[in-house]
Amino acid sequence: MKVKTITLLTDFGLKDPYVGIMKGVILSINQDVRIVDITHEIEPQDIREGAFLLKEYYQYFPKGSIHVAIVDPTVGSKRRALALYKDGHIFIGPDNGIFSLLIESDTESYAVTNRDFMLKQISSSFHGRDVFAPIAAHFAFGLHPSVLGERVIDLVCLTNIYPDIINAVLIGEVVRFDKFGNAITNIDIETFNDFTSGNKFKISVGNIAFGSLHKSYFEQDYTCITGSSGYLEFGYYKGNFQEKAGIKKGEAVTVRTAE
Amino acid sequence: MKVKTITLLTDFGLKDPYVGIMKGVILSINQDVRIVDITHEIEPQDIREGAFLLKEYYQYFPKGSIHVAIVDPTVGSKRRALALYKDGHIFIGPDNGIFSLLIESDTESYAVTNRDFMLKQISSSFHGRDVFAPIAAHFAFGLHPSVLGERVIDLVCLTNIYPDIINAVLIGEVVRFDKFGNAITNIDIETFNDFTSGNKFKISVGNIAFGSLHKSYFEQDYTCITGSSGYLEFGYYKGNFQEKAGIKKGEAVTVRTAE
Amino acid sequence: MKVKTITLLTDFGLKDPYVGIMKGVILSINQDVRIVDITHEIEPQDIREGAFLLKEYYQYFPKGSIHVAIVDPTVGSKRRALALYKDGHIFIGPDNGIFSLLIESDTESYAVTNRDFMLKQISSSFHGRDVFAPIAAHFAFGLHPSVLGERVIDLVCLTNIYPDIINAVLIGEVVRFDKFGNAITNIDIETFNDFTSGNKFKISVGNIAFGSLHKSYFEQDYTCITGSSGYLEFGYYKGNFQEKAGIKKGEAVTVRTAE
Repeated sequence: MKVKTITLLTDFGLKDPYVGIMKGVILSINQDVRIVDITHEIEPQDIREGAFLLKEYYQYFPKGSIHVAIVDPTVGSKRRALALYKDGHIFIGPDNGIFSLLIESDTESYAVTNRDFMLKQISSSFHGRDVFAPIAAHFAFGLHPSVLGERVIDLVCLTNIYPDIINAVLIGEVVRFDKFGNAITNIDIETFNDFTSGNKFKISVGNIAFGSLHKSYFEQDYTCITGSSGYLEFGYYKGNFQEKAGIKKGEAVTVRTAE
Repeated sequence: MKVKTITLLTDFGLKDPYVGIMKGVILSINQDVRIVDITHEIEPQDIREGAFLLKEYYQYFPKGSIHVAIVDPTVGSKRRALALYKDGHIFIGPDNGIFSLLIESDTESYAVTNRDFMLKQISSSFHGRDVFAPIAAHFAFGLHPSVLGERVIDLVCLTNIYPDIINAVLIGEVVRFDKFGNAITNIDIETFNDFTSGNKFKISVGNIAFGSLHKSYFEQDYTCITGSSGYLEFGYYKGNFQEKAGIKKGEAVTVRTAE
Repeated sequence: MKVKTITLLTDFGLKDPYVGIMKGVILSINQDVRIVDITHEIEPQDIREGAFLLKEYYQYFPKGSIHVAIVDPTVGSKRRALALYKDGHIFIGPDNGIFSLLIESDTESYAVTNRDFMLKQISSSFHGRDVFAPIAAHFAFGLHPSVLGERVIDLVCLTNIYPDIINAVLIGEVVRFDKFGNAITNIDIETFNDFTSGNKFKISVGNIAFGSLHKSYFEQDYTCITGSSGYLEFGYYKGNFQEKAGIKKGEAVTVRTAE
């Protein structure tokens, strides 16, 4: 039997011992797991960024993997702890919208209420340690989620996560910047291709416009490519697009056609 | 047999190859281990911060784990290399105070002098690689520490690590800031409860005062909670307490009662 | 059979999900591996820094380890993907000079062209995921490199990677700064000893000069030691040499003798 993989996605950073403590809790319950860090550098409390990253990375992991996603500004309130089944993967985290991009017809969600799968003492500020890590460790034994709690369908969902067409303009936005300063949008290439249908187009972000897509970042200074995640993204060769373009997260991205 | 877990706590950072090299050294000696990073972002040469983190995280790991803690400003001098047994865990690092919070009646300490458990060549600047990583890798085979060197009792200890009561005021300090800017003190909740004994109290730090403890960080702007580590800590909702309060590490924290 | 170790050295950073995605790709192909991060904080697109780090760390890992090194400013161009055999280790990465310090008479290099060992769809911007991670995962099964592609000898090589003697002056440079601000040069201690031959010497960098080597960083404020990697390096006790000395990467380092 292969060991299960547990991935961790948080905004805890790597300066503090919190991620290490979560790993200790997992290993104290179940040592037959492999723990993989995705990132702990999500912008603090930016649930939206976490939601997009989760959707982007999970599919590259083996089926059966357990993905723990914690961006949790209201830790200690009554927001529920969730376990989701989707596409052969298991997702664990708070019910605050972080799973928004995973909610489709095939998703099964459970509100985890069974205290047997949590630490005895639950703090008000660190459910990563007291709630989510122990749940993940128990899941790696092969639990059926129904032992954890009731099935639920009324999950918290973020709004405006998908691009929209208004007055014949495709409108999306910049959802995050990567470390190089490239701007990743929420406009996926399929939506873009459907909208443009082979016609001439103009993509605008801030004061910058593109009339074509590029193949890679080194073709010219400013580039607009289909990023590795399948979304349109903007870069600046050997430089930082975010700074060059002077834009922020949430900046509108528009696509117009000349048909 | 379960593989042993080796944890790493250092101020080496993740930019340089030093942590990766330590892992290579460990794996070259003993591949049947699991290596877990706690943090490598301790403020450079801040032994005190390392001492508090070590105390905080180790208990969440399985008994038998080996914890390597390196904040080592005098590497290359004659300071000793130590191995400590406490509470079923093993601790390895320099004799410079980093183990101050672990020294209790049940702690057994050894000065490691046996060169067989170190790399052949010992540099003057990287004992993490040449001394501590190899010792940890050998420990994971199940060594008795007496083969490493002599038992010792005169360990270097930091001063002022515990809060004190002076003129009926409980005086502690801020020992570190987490990544969110929350300020963690050295006043644990038991000491606080003993001192206040159910009376009204006033907690002061910088220009900010609290007359009650909060349950979680989202109750109001400025909060004082029992942190996840069991120590009093201060936060600012969706913001950075350190910046808002304008305080530094070592800032005094006082508790007064109105009885 | 021991599991194979795959190490990762990139400039991708830890903020983005890219490194985590590479791990997912590896584990989806081959779960019997151990993945170790060396660093992902190489200065963006600084192939030279990557080349020096790679040379420094690989030798500390067990023979048979697979080292993936990606600093890849021209990803998406026609630059080749390489697999190198050297010293019982395997190296995988782009043909852009990152392997410059590994090319010696015993190195065997292959241009990987067999698409069976890559992901089906190859993006133009993320060969770490689509090309290099899958190759590494397949290598861990024990492939002979000849199934991957043709042997090649015309690898891209960086210039000026070794120090030189011009007019009786040994001239090297600062190749990187570590996290503490110590400056690591490309002058190894053997070259230095051969050049100085026991004579008096003067080492200069920026406005600072040394007439002797120190044993460790705490001997005095400014120090010049034989670093843990065997290269001359400069430090400032409890401070940042780079800032104190006001120098940059590439700064000339000269050694003169008084013979």
